[in-house]
Parts: sequence; structure tokens; C-alpha cells
Amino acid sequence: MEQWGSSRWSCDKVIPLFLPQCGECEFCLSPKTNLCFKNWQKTQQGVLSDGTSRITCRGQQVYQFLGVSTFCEYTVVPEFNVAKIHRDAPLDKVCLLGCGVATGYGAALNIAKVDRGSVCAVFGLGTVGLATVMGCKAAGASRIIGVDINPQKHEISKKFGVSEFVNPDDHSKPIQEVLKEMTGGGVDYSFECVGNVTLMRAVFESCRVGWGTCVIVGWNETGTLSLSPIDILMGRTLKGTYFGGRK
Amino acid sequence: MEQWGSSRWSCDKVIPLFLPQCGECEFCLSPKTNLCFKNWQKTQQGVLSDGTSRITCRGQQVYQFLGVSTFCEYTVVPEFNVAKIHRDAPLDKVCLLGCGVATGYGAALNIAKVDRGSVCAVFGLGTVGLATVMGCKAAGASRIIGVDINPQKHEISKKFGVSEFVNPDDHSKPIQEVLKEMTGGGVDYSFECVGNVTLMRAVFESCRVGWGTCVIVGWNETGTLSLSPIDILMGRTLKGTYFGGRK
Repeated sequence: MEQWGSSRWSCDKVIPLFLPQCGECEFCLSPKTNLCFKNWQKTQQGVLSDGTSRITCRGQQVYQFLGVSTFCEYTVVPEFNVAKIHRDAPLDKVCLLGCGVATGYGAALNIAKVDRGSVCAVFGLGTVGLATVMGCKAAGASRIIGVDINPQKHEISKKFGVSEFVNPDDHSKPIQEVLKEMTGGGVDYSFECVGNVTLMRAVFESCRVGWGTCVIVGWNETGTLSLSPIDILMGRTLKGTYFGGRK
Repeated sequence: MEQWGSSRWSCDKVIPLFLPQCGECEFCLSPKTNLCFKNWQKTQQGVLSDGTSRITCRGQQVYQFLGVSTFCEYTVVPEFNVAKIHRDAPLDKVCLLGCGVATGYGAALNIAKVDRGSVCAVFGLGTVGLATVMGCKAAGASRIIGVDINPQKHEISKKFGVSEFVNPDDHSKPIQEVLKEMTGGGVDYSFECVGNVTLMRAVFESCRVGWGTCVIVGWNETGTLSLSPIDILMGRTLKGTYFGGRK
């Protein structure tokens, strides 16, 4: 996306940010979170931080999806809703950084805090999942198990760092049991990058008793996640992330 | 409990440990957990680490509850199932250290890792809950909100460090909404010390968007905990503990 600055006539390449920080609220001032609750509420309402939207169609107001109007050719957003990038950056590729890549990569590094030598499993190998794989690899994971029902993801996921690929459709037993057998009890870190509540439970149960951590990355606003308390009491941790914990 | 050693004729006062460490398994060798899965499985079967029980009644084998036979006057356990204590320790009081106190105190310090100045809520003010309150206080929490439906817990909980007491029966709205109003959005750390799955959800929702951590301490082997994924995705953490993470 190209940006025309208002203070002088220049054109920058930018990536729109759907989770900008106001820099003043309790959340922005805390090192513990990347949420800006003020801006989050506004983006959920389809308006900019000042409560307006700046796009009309035949005189009628059009709301701005996630505050930045993804999928439109031109938009108006506050300055803190964009990050300037290098002028030579290829826009058709770097656009992925604005959501999926940052979310997945950050889920591994900022939220799970994957440690060197650990065993990871990533469920769902789309942009978010493949970026999670990259994050696990950057953290030094010794094994990264990719899980997807699309067999075509096998080859491509290897390029991103997947060491073993599992297709749940190739197994008659539940996927969490498959992973427990492959790893002698479960993985150290598991990631749900789909947004399916039934899968979330399987992903949670795939991580190891004692210290396994499961991070929910896939978005789901309406479902109900059911868990067995005993699976929590035995030392597992469940975390969530929004935009990979990245400020 | 008094112990007669086998190697020489002496009598020690000891506290029986229901979660002993074998010292050799993957779990015992990891600093991340206090579980010894080998011993845990044996205690669940009602036998000692060697697979036997050493108590009979009229010639019939009697199983040993949690490996230590709580509530019996005499028992036989391996040496690593007991911790020697001071000879002057009052047995009617220190017996609480063997489970409830260690569990609650450790939940705050070892599992939640409550930080100085934070706001905590402890649901259920029995031995485990009051010990959790003590742990929060030791960690330097600025506010400790005690929650119990027994009004008699108000006064006693103050002695352990509770700064505010809330009885859910005194409110018409859900307890998580009451706590959110009291704290401007939720507590930093919440603890479920009851073992009720409906309450677990309320306790989870009582902690703050962005960085709230909920620790499940109360035991429940059979229920189902239902959560909304959006409550997880907004940066909350759910953890469980067994014996307070104490090795």
C-alpha cells in the first residue's frame, strides 16, 4: 500500500496495522500485552480511532474492516495505523506481514517462548501456521511436527522448517494420540492455527503432561472450547494470542 | 506421623508425601515440573512405588490411598514418601503442610508467579485457598480479594492476608462481573480453589484481558470446563497445578 503524507507531498510504501497502539492507555503502557483496548474496541465497530470512517459509496458511509479496510484499493487511516517499509519491498509479498506472518511468528517467540531443543506441533499450515513453524525454527526447536488434512502442505511446509508431517486423515485414532505416540507422551509446545474449537481440544491434549504449553492462534468468536480439568491440573498451560503479542 | 527407621532403631516425626519423586524419570529430571509420572500412576492405583500395598485387614489386601494411606494410624511407605520434620513440631497442625498448604502457597509462588503490586482473587477459602492467599501476600500483591459463599470466612481470611471479601450470594450479577467492576477490568491473577467446573469458568473470566492468569488448583477429575475461545485469544493464560509445583 502506498501512502501520501499530509505534511509534505511524499509517497511511502506502508503496511496497514489492524492493531495500532494509542500509546497512552493502561494496555499500551504495560510490557505484558500488545493489546490497545481502546483501539481494539474501535476496530471492532468498523471505525477509526476518532470514531469515524472516511469512506463513502454513493453518499453512504462505509465501515472500515478492522480499522484499515482490508481489500480496498484506497483508504484513510491515522498515521499510527501504518508502518513504513523499504521502497523496494514487493507489495504482493510483504502484505502478508500485516497479519498472518506476524501473528504466527510471534505466537512461537513471544507467547509460547519456545525454547531450544524443544518439540513443537503446529496444527493448520496456512500463512499463520507456516509462520508459526518459522518461529519455532528460529527458536531452535529440535522437532517441528506439521499437522494438516491437506496432503499438498507436506512439501511446502518442509521449506518453512517442518521436520515431520502428519495428516490426521491417515490415522484411525485421534490426532492427539498419534502425537503422543510419536513423542513419547506429547509435545512441549502445540499451536492451533485454524480456529476450530474441536481441534483446539485435541491440540491442547497433544501437549505434554507436566509442562506442555498450548497456544490458541486461530480466531473463533462464537464457539465453546470444552476441556477436562484434569488435563489442566496435570501441569499444562493454555494461552491465547492476538497478532502474536507484537507491539 | 512418627517414623521408625529400618536401618537403626530411631523415631522421627515426618510428614507423608503423596507426590514423591523417584529422581530418575524424565519428569524428575526436568526443572519444569514436580510430577513424577511413575509414582503418580502407582498412587492412582493405590499401591506403593514397588507395586505392592503393605496393609491387610483380616488377611485381605487393603489399598493405600494416594500411596500414603491418609486417615490410618499406621502405614508402611518408602523412605522417599516422607519428609522428616522438627521433633517439636505439633502434629495436629503440621499435617496440613502435607497437602493443602503446600498446594495453595505454591500455586501463587511457583505456578502463577504473582508479581509485586498485582491484584489477586482467590475463590474458595478453605485450607488450599487460605494458603494461596498467604502465597499472594508473600509475593507482595497489593490487593487480595477473597471469594467465598460462607460469610464466616470473612474474618478468618483477613488474618491470612485477604484485603477485600466478596460473597457471591450478596450480588445479583455474576461474580466475574462484580470483580471486573471492583478492579476496573479484572484481576491480574485468579485462583480456583474449589474444584467446581462452573466456578472455574467464572474464575478464568475474572482475570484481566491482555495478561490475566488463572490457576486451577481445586481438584476435579470428572467434569468438563467450557470456555469461550475469544476469552483466551485476548491474552489470558490458564494454568493448572498439582501440589503447588513443589518438588
